[in-house]
Amino acid sequence: MNFDSIVFIVTLFVIVPSESRVLEIKSDRCEKILGSDLIEEIWSYKNVKDDILEYVLEGEFKGKTYDELAKFVDKFGARPSGTEVLEKSIDYMIDLTKNEGINDIITEEVKVPLWERGEEKITMLEPRKKDIELLGLGKSVTTPPEGLEGEVVVVRSFEEFDNFSDEKIRGKIVLYVPVFTTYGETVPYRSQGASKASAKGAIASLVRSITPFSLNTPHTGSQTYADGVVPIPTAAISLEDADLITRMYDRGEKVVLNIKMSSKLDENKISRNTLIDLKGSKHPEKLVIVSGHIDSWDVGQGAMDDGGGMFVSWAAPVILKRLNLTPKRTVRAIFWTAEELGLIGAHAYEEAHRNESHNINFVMESDEGTFAPLGLAVGGTPTTLCIVAEILKLFKSINASTLVEEDNPGSDITVFTSKGIPGASLHNDNGKYFWFHHTEADTMNVEDPDELDLGAAFWTAVAYIIADLSIDIPR
Amino acid sequence: MNFDSIVFIVTLFVIVPSESRVLEIKSDRCEKILGSDLIEEIWSYKNVKDDILEYVLEGEFKGKTYDELAKFVDKFGARPSGTEVLEKSIDYMIDLTKNEGINDIITEEVKVPLWERGEEKITMLEPRKKDIELLGLGKSVTTPPEGLEGEVVVVRSFEEFDNFSDEKIRGKIVLYVPVFTTYGETVPYRSQGASKASAKGAIASLVRSITPFSLNTPHTGSQTYADGVVPIPTAAISLEDADLITRMYDRGEKVVLNIKMSSKLDENKISRNTLIDLKGSKHPEKLVIVSGHIDSWDVGQGAMDDGGGMFVSWAAPVILKRLNLTPKRTVRAIFWTAEELGLIGAHAYEEAHRNESHNINFVMESDEGTFAPLGLAVGGTPTTLCIVAEILKLFKSINASTLVEEDNPGSDITVFTSKGIPGASLHNDNGKYFWFHHTEADTMNVEDPDELDLGAAFWTAVAYIIADLSIDIPR
Repeated sequence: MNFDSIVFIVTLFVIVPSESRVLEIKSDRCEKILGSDLIEEIWSYKNVKDDILEYVLEGEFKGKTYDELAKFVDKFGARPSGTEVLEKSIDYMIDLTKNEGINDIITEEVKVPLWERGEEKITMLEPRKKDIELLGLGKSVTTPPEGLEGEVVVVRSFEEFDNFSDEKIRGKIVLYVPVFTTYGETVPYRSQGASKASAKGAIASLVRSITPFSLNTPHTGSQTYADGVVPIPTAAISLEDADLITRMYDRGEKVVLNIKMSSKLDENKISRNTLIDLKGSKHPEKLVIVSGHIDSWDVGQGAMDDGGGMFVSWAAPVILKRLNLTPKRTVRAIFWTAEELGLIGAHAYEEAHRNESHNINFVMESDEGTFAPLGLAVGGTPTTLCIVAEILKLFKSINASTLVEEDNPGSDITVFTSKGIPGASLHNDNGKYFWFHHTEADTMNVEDPDELDLGAAFWTAVAYIIADLSIDIPR
Repeated sequence: MNFDSIVFIVTLFVIVPSESRVLEIKSDRCEKILGSDLIEEIWSYKNVKDDILEYVLEGEFKGKTYDELAKFVDKFGARPSGTEVLEKSIDYMIDLTKNEGINDIITEEVKVPLWERGEEKITMLEPRKKDIELLGLGKSVTTPPEGLEGEVVVVRSFEEFDNFSDEKIRGKIVLYVPVFTTYGETVPYRSQGASKASAKGAIASLVRSITPFSLNTPHTGSQTYADGVVPIPTAAISLEDADLITRMYDRGEKVVLNIKMSSKLDENKISRNTLIDLKGSKHPEKLVIVSGHIDSWDVGQGAMDDGGGMFVSWAAPVILKRLNLTPKRTVRAIFWTAEELGLIGAHAYEEAHRNESHNINFVMESDEGTFAPLGLAVGGTPTTLCIVAEILKLFKSINASTLVEEDNPGSDITVFTSKGIPGASLHNDNGKYFWFHHTEADTMNVEDPDELDLGAAFWTAVAYIIADLSIDIPR
């Protein structure tokens, strides 16, 4: 998941990102809005929902989501945008789906960047010699082969930094050490830090990894050079090393680093979005989209971000096909490409399909982990919220009835929800998500077979019900 | 902390390591054993205890243990046995102590090994290319410069392994993948795995790191080549990589690795135990020892293992000196050297001082973390346990009144307790200890200033009371 773009979009449209709110819909208010017929219709899906849950939690599909995800990420590992391995992994998913007897699969080409990490090494030279644990940030420029040597200035906040003179920063290495509060609040130090440091003449910028917990674990992620600034090398270092440097700096010790980083950037690679349709029986042109992204960062296995989200979305049409459940509308699974470098696949899809966007009935995305499902984070009108809240009541037995109201839930799908298309992101028990995010530790060890089963069953049943309702989800 | 030696010693003396037991001493039984005079005497230390707690938790010493520990580990980093940095760190501690006006400091030379880690790299060649995260194990031999190439055999338990034919293992790389239960149960796969694998003709052995949690974090530690077996290269790999290889192996895929490891071993270096005395007023020859080890593994900062333990032990004579509290017996702080390679400093001390061992009244060690103190793990006679239990009642206000009964508590001090000398190990809230143990993540980020204050205050007050009691601790 790449949260930066969300923050960006939210900023564009609502200025201040609204806090998520767990919806407390007064039953009587929703009852009035929905009417007893619709409520009764929603509850008529109880048996179908039970069938799906039974098939996935206790039947033939039990453990399959985990097993297929494991086979996939073990075979391909990390799948960065623009690489051959990503394209091979897309072909693999197409074959896997065809083996299920689903043939309504198309791919759509997208121009994507390839940023290839080379050698990366930071050595503390003063006050003592020590290797510093790092991961370069996306699209960082390289250093000279012998590295850049400079003294560190520790910066605790942008507010503090804005008051620093250019003189204090010129020729220095800026190290931002924000304490993690929320991802949204802390990540600007990663995504904008290099540009701000460069504007005052820094030769490189580093950021304390964006995470609440570490085992000396650096976290990569995207960053953008603002127009007009000299691009400088930029990397995230572990909490431990950032805090060590900060303690030394606070004691008045001079901290000198040598930073060696190399990388290659090619902005003109081709990747593909993958679209898998389970055609609707009555309104095949109308879509309920379930989605996750297939690309990942170049570290770990991309099992959590976003292999799990892609696989619960893959599971939806597969499970419905296996159970001979054909909803009125089409259920379309989409595997977005190049999410990590800026929702590139989602933007391309939105542009290419803009003239049929009225056909998107509801757009769903899982890209915040596939831990135990708790419900949905939903963006839409009050009526939409009431419909989804009523549907979620069907999932009390698996503790997945919570509706969180968000203006723009999700990551890729903010491209749609920011234009008023109703949608939802999987709300799940992901309190440790940022421990693993964008690290070598994003592997199958994060995933749990039973939680993936719950997620796949929940995701499939919700998509089915929405795709089969007698009414469209209102905008 | 090096638990292997404990397991060894426990095995020698009691065959099956006894489980720790939280002591439920019936009040009336202890009352009878102790008698009302002794109980009254113990409670007479309430005010002294309060003074010590106040001085450390709210007074001039507040935050000092953390600050001094940070300065120390930030300055020296890891301090492996046999290195110059370890010896410099010993000199630093002597100066730090002298600055407190304590001059009864001696060091005693100990012959220790130096095992220096060189290049370490494991590459998976089949079924796909991937770097494997590793740390070589202590005293591992090197590979040829081009590395060793071999097919992996995954082994889940020694029971399973014992049934494998030599033919299945000959020429292979053995990967042990025990699931972590307790450290004591799981660590033999690290400490004995290479020998067992070599005995059946393996060319190298790897072990899933001995930890319940990982962020792709390898954990080093000691291992011993048994007499008569060919020493083979041996390393720990991360849980994530071990589990990846296991999944591939279980799918019937052939897993081929190249292992490159280099190291140097010199068995004849000299290090020092450090002894700091706060001389007793009445029985200066009688000792209450507080201790931790100053050496560490060669990764991380050795802040938890065992910087924290050493510093709460350093704090005891320093705080007593500052508060003009002179107990009847001598409080001796000892910083053991070369614990990690087999309690070498402790064994040397025990040998050198064997003819005065009757003077050790009580021996205390903190080497299982300095998280919030909960009480003591104690080895001794029923009377000893009752005395300590009564003393611990004084620490209800800081929730440190728990007595855990153990036959041989601690690590270094098992050298003494196994000979019947009563002793105790700091019992603390260390549920995550093995997340950090022997890794790059053993840094100041594990430590908490307030918890260190609690530990230092508790440690000092307990040592003072025992050193000042009218009676010796019985054996």
